[in-house]
Amino acid sequence: MNFNYHIPTKVLFGAGKLNELLNENLPGKKALIVTTGGKSVKKYGYLSRLENILTEKRVEYVLFDKILPNPIKSHVMEGAALAKKENCDFIIGLGGGSSIDSAKSIAVMVNNPGDYWDYIVGGSGKGLPVKEDVLPIVAITTTAGTGTEADPWTVITKEDTKEKIGFGNEHTFPTLSVVDPELMLTVPPNLTAYQGFDALFHSTEGYIANIATPISDAYALKSIELIAKYLSKAVKDGSDLEARTQVALANTISGLVESTSSCTSEHSMEHALSANHPELPHGAGLIMLSEAYYTFFAERSPERFVNMARAMGVDVNSINEKERPMAFVKALVKLQEDCSVRELKMSSYNITKEEIPSLALNARETMGGLFELDPYKLSIEETIEIMLKAYK
Amino acid sequence: MNFNYHIPTKVLFGAGKLNELLNENLPGKKALIVTTGGKSVKKYGYLSRLENILTEKRVEYVLFDKILPNPIKSHVMEGAALAKKENCDFIIGLGGGSSIDSAKSIAVMVNNPGDYWDYIVGGSGKGLPVKEDVLPIVAITTTAGTGTEADPWTVITKEDTKEKIGFGNEHTFPTLSVVDPELMLTVPPNLTAYQGFDALFHSTEGYIANIATPISDAYALKSIELIAKYLSKAVKDGSDLEARTQVALANTISGLVESTSSCTSEHSMEHALSANHPELPHGAGLIMLSEAYYTFFAERSPERFVNMARAMGVDVNSINEKERPMAFVKALVKLQEDCSVRELKMSSYNITKEEIPSLALNARETMGGLFELDPYKLSIEETIEIMLKAYK
Repeated sequence: MNFNYHIPTKVLFGAGKLNELLNENLPGKKALIVTTGGKSVKKYGYLSRLENILTEKRVEYVLFDKILPNPIKSHVMEGAALAKKENCDFIIGLGGGSSIDSAKSIAVMVNNPGDYWDYIVGGSGKGLPVKEDVLPIVAITTTAGTGTEADPWTVITKEDTKEKIGFGNEHTFPTLSVVDPELMLTVPPNLTAYQGFDALFHSTEGYIANIATPISDAYALKSIELIAKYLSKAVKDGSDLEARTQVALANTISGLVESTSSCTSEHSMEHALSANHPELPHGAGLIMLSEAYYTFFAERSPERFVNMARAMGVDVNSINEKERPMAFVKALVKLQEDCSVRELKMSSYNITKEEIPSLALNARETMGGLFELDPYKLSIEETIEIMLKAYK
Repeated sequence: MNFNYHIPTKVLFGAGKLNELLNENLPGKKALIVTTGGKSVKKYGYLSRLENILTEKRVEYVLFDKILPNPIKSHVMEGAALAKKENCDFIIGLGGGSSIDSAKSIAVMVNNPGDYWDYIVGGSGKGLPVKEDVLPIVAITTTAGTGTEADPWTVITKEDTKEKIGFGNEHTFPTLSVVDPELMLTVPPNLTAYQGFDALFHSTEGYIANIATPISDAYALKSIELIAKYLSKAVKDGSDLEARTQVALANTISGLVESTSSCTSEHSMEHALSANHPELPHGAGLIMLSEAYYTFFAERSPERFVNMARAMGVDVNSINEKERPMAFVKALVKLQEDCSVRELKMSSYNITKEEIPSLALNARETMGGLFELDPYKLSIEETIEIMLKAYK
């Protein structure tokens, strides 16, 4: 029990909170707004609301609106060049995890020389230290999935080598984050489910990780509890503000889990899938892997699985002791049914069975670090076995 | 569900962590070390270890070692004057809550004009805004009681008017805190118990407070669970490093509770007791009040009490539903017996029964704000009733 605890981000949480940005000190005079190439932030007025707030606060801004759902390195470099040319002194990420993660990576590259991949640890990354200042980051999240508003992590894909790798340090925590569930009311049901399960898995992985602490445990079980109670409501009725709020909170708490514990190899495996098949949403990939993944670990970390089952609302005491760990997996499958994502298949995204061994290898080469944090050390054969069991 | 979450403190937690201060960036070039007038920090070498680290890091320091167990305003003013005269640019609190709270209040008064009580809200405080910079604060805690290393609060007594009032803002969070349970191995059993119960009550009050959030709830229940499991072990065998570590963690988590929820009127009532009888340790005063206090609220917040009972390790399902809320109070009394503090009496500290009404009035006048956060709004008569029931 030896750890450092440091989550410097200030989070404004709750319905209507975007308006409170008006009263906050922003960390600069000219912002690069990083947002998606999609339509939603414009169509629903989120971007114009942000622009109005900045104008009222006499903060200048430049817009960079090209980010893809699976964000790519070339956009990080392009955004950083734009921020530099325009003398931006802070970065605002507006949107889902892809926009906010890109904002973080751009914030790193404005003052640091060379290529973003020079600083990446894993795969073909050079693992150089980040020596120059990272620009301050403001995160305004319009989805409940990655927890990036409350952690230092950013996940970017290098397109040519198909590597999708996480990165972050103490300077890539957002300075300020706005989590306003009103901005999430328009997320369609399937994305609500994918993102909600991503949040869930940040907490379940963080709970079984071998570096978990009692603090990360408290976060993880609370987040699991809230997702289990409210995610299917938010999926079934996107306009249910209470469900949206509780899922948003679960997601922010899952970010706190990621700031105090870590993801495990489930995330490495998924990154291999969506780096090679960028049309696969990250959360959907995790859902596809999850039953096989957690079934494999249930017997290898039984007490933790029982606690997760309890957090999912299972009356654990009424179950035969031997079957309690798998009760978590059953509750997980049931939640996937309730959220209409039980039928997701890798084959629908053109992933072939024959690819699996090379994807397993990619997972271990690019994000091998997370395998070290599993409660049991997987061999390459076991990695392939789990991924094959998940295949359909 | 609308809140701001911001706990900027970096906490180094674990046995041996004091040594890691060597590798940290300290927030200044010359420190005022604020510590107790007692002997322990010198006798056990904690002060000289800190001085050696500062010397090795080429950070100058000045020592202010006058702080009393119930810290007083005149020492705040004296310490601030010394820091100013010596051009200190940050403050280190070394010791228990009294030293660290004094360090926070001194940090406020180095650059802000007038008297400390000008900035206090409540009682005879003038409630002026703190306009000038608060110096950065480093907290090195040698006890597990106040949670001050992970919250912005400082509690100081104005000697002449016998007012003991909490204060804090976003600038009075420590920048850096060291929680090293090895420094706690020498705390005597009675103080271990008093401090541990103080931590417990930060969490139980924060859990029943009407501004609690799911995040503060997660902290509170975890802290309650750890105290219930480990406090009596730490009391019975002070050299049990595992028990010390778990209680230290529970205490730090209780600070997180105080940063995200709040104390309730139990703390106001205790402040009235120890402001008027400064020889009464704060934790002992809370213990004296607690059975009557929580008995009063058990029926007024039954669900929360059941959850607290469960966190205390009670098998709630095996109890008749009507009796479940009071199961928390029974577990609390049992823990007090196990920690040998069940027999504490106000009369042993020269508190008379006749004083109680005026003490209740003092509680409401100096720390009236916390009464607003109770799950049920106490009248003055009910406040007196609780305090009289607690009297023996």
